[in-house]
Amino acid sequence: MIAMFGDEEETREKIDPWGSRAITDYSHIYTDFSISTITPEAKAFFADKTFLFERDIIIGERNLGEIVDLIRKKDDFAIVSGFATSGDLHYGHKAVIDVYKFFRQYTKRGYFAICDLDAYVSRPDAKIPSLAASQEYAVRDVADVLALGVSERDIVVQSGRDAGYYDFAFQVSKKLTLNTMKATLGHTDLGKFSAAYLQIADILYPQVENGGMPTLVPAGIDQEPLLRLTRDVARKFKSTYDLTVPSSVYIAHLPSLQDFTDKMSKSKENSALMLTSSEQEMEKVVSNAITGGRETTEEQRKFGGNPQKCSIYDMYKFNHPDSAFVKGVCDRCVSGQLLCGEDKKVLKEFLRQDLKEHAKGRDEFLERARKIVIKK
Amino acid sequence: MIAMFGDEEETREKIDPWGSRAITDYSHIYTDFSISTITPEAKAFFADKTFLFERDIIIGERNLGEIVDLIRKKDDFAIVSGFATSGDLHYGHKAVIDVYKFFRQYTKRGYFAICDLDAYVSRPDAKIPSLAASQEYAVRDVADVLALGVSERDIVVQSGRDAGYYDFAFQVSKKLTLNTMKATLGHTDLGKFSAAYLQIADILYPQVENGGMPTLVPAGIDQEPLLRLTRDVARKFKSTYDLTVPSSVYIAHLPSLQDFTDKMSKSKENSALMLTSSEQEMEKVVSNAITGGRETTEEQRKFGGNPQKCSIYDMYKFNHPDSAFVKGVCDRCVSGQLLCGEDKKVLKEFLRQDLKEHAKGRDEFLERARKIVIKK
Repeated sequence: MIAMFGDEEETREKIDPWGSRAITDYSHIYTDFSISTITPEAKAFFADKTFLFERDIIIGERNLGEIVDLIRKKDDFAIVSGFATSGDLHYGHKAVIDVYKFFRQYTKRGYFAICDLDAYVSRPDAKIPSLAASQEYAVRDVADVLALGVSERDIVVQSGRDAGYYDFAFQVSKKLTLNTMKATLGHTDLGKFSAAYLQIADILYPQVENGGMPTLVPAGIDQEPLLRLTRDVARKFKSTYDLTVPSSVYIAHLPSLQDFTDKMSKSKENSALMLTSSEQEMEKVVSNAITGGRETTEEQRKFGGNPQKCSIYDMYKFNHPDSAFVKGVCDRCVSGQLLCGEDKKVLKEFLRQDLKEHAKGRDEFLERARKIVIKK
Repeated sequence: MIAMFGDEEETREKIDPWGSRAITDYSHIYTDFSISTITPEAKAFFADKTFLFERDIIIGERNLGEIVDLIRKKDDFAIVSGFATSGDLHYGHKAVIDVYKFFRQYTKRGYFAICDLDAYVSRPDAKIPSLAASQEYAVRDVADVLALGVSERDIVVQSGRDAGYYDFAFQVSKKLTLNTMKATLGHTDLGKFSAAYLQIADILYPQVENGGMPTLVPAGIDQEPLLRLTRDVARKFKSTYDLTVPSSVYIAHLPSLQDFTDKMSKSKENSALMLTSSEQEMEKVVSNAITGGRETTEEQRKFGGNPQKCSIYDMYKFNHPDSAFVKGVCDRCVSGQLLCGEDKKVLKEFLRQDLKEHAKGRDEFLERARKIVIKK
């Protein structure tokens, strides 16, 4: 579920009501949709716990207050996230995992959905020719997810669940009409409808199985239509199942390194930094990355750069653990001290280490990942 | 799958392209749809094996010749049938089971689908409030099916299958478009679409699991739209799975005992003879049954009755094992020897025995049926 990345470009425009071309302009999502900005109280509560709020990686929420209360009281809630397996993962996927892991530490119930089935049913055969192909992606993705520190017991592979899950996913379709689907998702593709049923089941089934409980869904902002359907279905099942309407936090898109108004996409050249990049591939993407720098060194020294329009800075903002360092980059860029060349050099060194460590963990988990995905 | 009976009356008109009011007029199905009449060769082949063809209980076929060849060569094929569990079964359901059992003896691979999940997702909550309610119907229906002689190992309960089955059912949706569904089924109900995916998976999944093999589907004639979708999906998956396009035989509807142009329906008074009827209930329905008799005894003696428009005769035709007896009833009715009162009396005696034996078998299987349906 939460097929945040990897959708075919030609259809994403329709799925995403506010258009992927304008994802850096988030202001209207708070008015067009019932997404709230993060309250000062929530920001204060999380300030000493994570940089995800202060760095605007989590940019919106619905009913997060309830989850904050549970964290304060050390009560349990379910946290559910995941993604469709349509190829290797990039640093944008890592942001989802970072948010998942952050909230996961406050509860015992984590569900990270590996959506191999919905990836296949929602994409043309030209992109994913079979469920088996999608499962091969899933093996690689699960290795990444484990290497990034998600616990194996959280991982739920969509193609290999128990009958109750699928029974529920089919029941979801009964609570939705063609008009609702068309109005909410902007298309009438029956395979994509099925993907939505599965994603809604991914979010709600933990409650069907274990009884109603508060649930938090970290999701990309373009997943709000799916979450709206999920809340709708949860309410409609109220006489059948004990379901709590899920809370959600919305994650900003890590922009493309070619265009900070677009999100990372592995299908565009130099757009994404893959978690599986070789050193050479990473260096090529960073070298070609667009920055907020000036035309000439002289201008840059004189007027400073613009980190708000810099894909290098975005990489630090989303990924560097040291907030003082990230702030330092910002200050030195704005003041004209830091030139783009040096900035890129430092980022390359940071990513070189990060990718090296990740590759090691990933290799160790590959065999285990295969057993998790392909059970027989 | 093959939700031959029990659909809500208000929607059946739309699902059934030739209208349930005219089901006794079968001639146009051979021209409007690609259903063939039974060839003289097939009739001859089956003449000494069953009365199902000569009595026009099986009224049409698609590619039955292939199955006949396999029977001659003693080769295996899959036989798949079943029904939705939306209430107790009547003698119309028994006709489907009779046809299933007949072909089942010629092959090792039988699949009788108990469609509790599709029954629930395709019907309003007012009719079936939950999957659990549908499963309760399934328990009773499975006991009936076992008592009628279907082997336990043939029974596949839709709500409790393995992941591969559901994965395939969701994949089916990818191969169908909204336009196809609308044109073929005459509605855009997403729950009923899901029921169709499940039914198509019921028919094709044995081949996904075991490799392509000829498959025969006995189905009510109003299921041809679903079978058309099934053939369409089988062809579309040809590069992904090894699938043979299924053959089918079409079963005439056992008419209502109130209106021989309608089919049996448990929701209409005196329309259906339930397999769970008490002696009193059965006698009431038979007493009220419409017949092909004349206004007065004198006219009947003089001009004879009309077995072609007689629900009593239909009951014999579908259920009495002795063809000589059934033919005798016909002759004596037409010649004016047999009056409706006597005819009903004899039918009551026949049904009394039949229901008594069935009730005994059914009671013995109820506990086992519960274990089959509700696994946990």
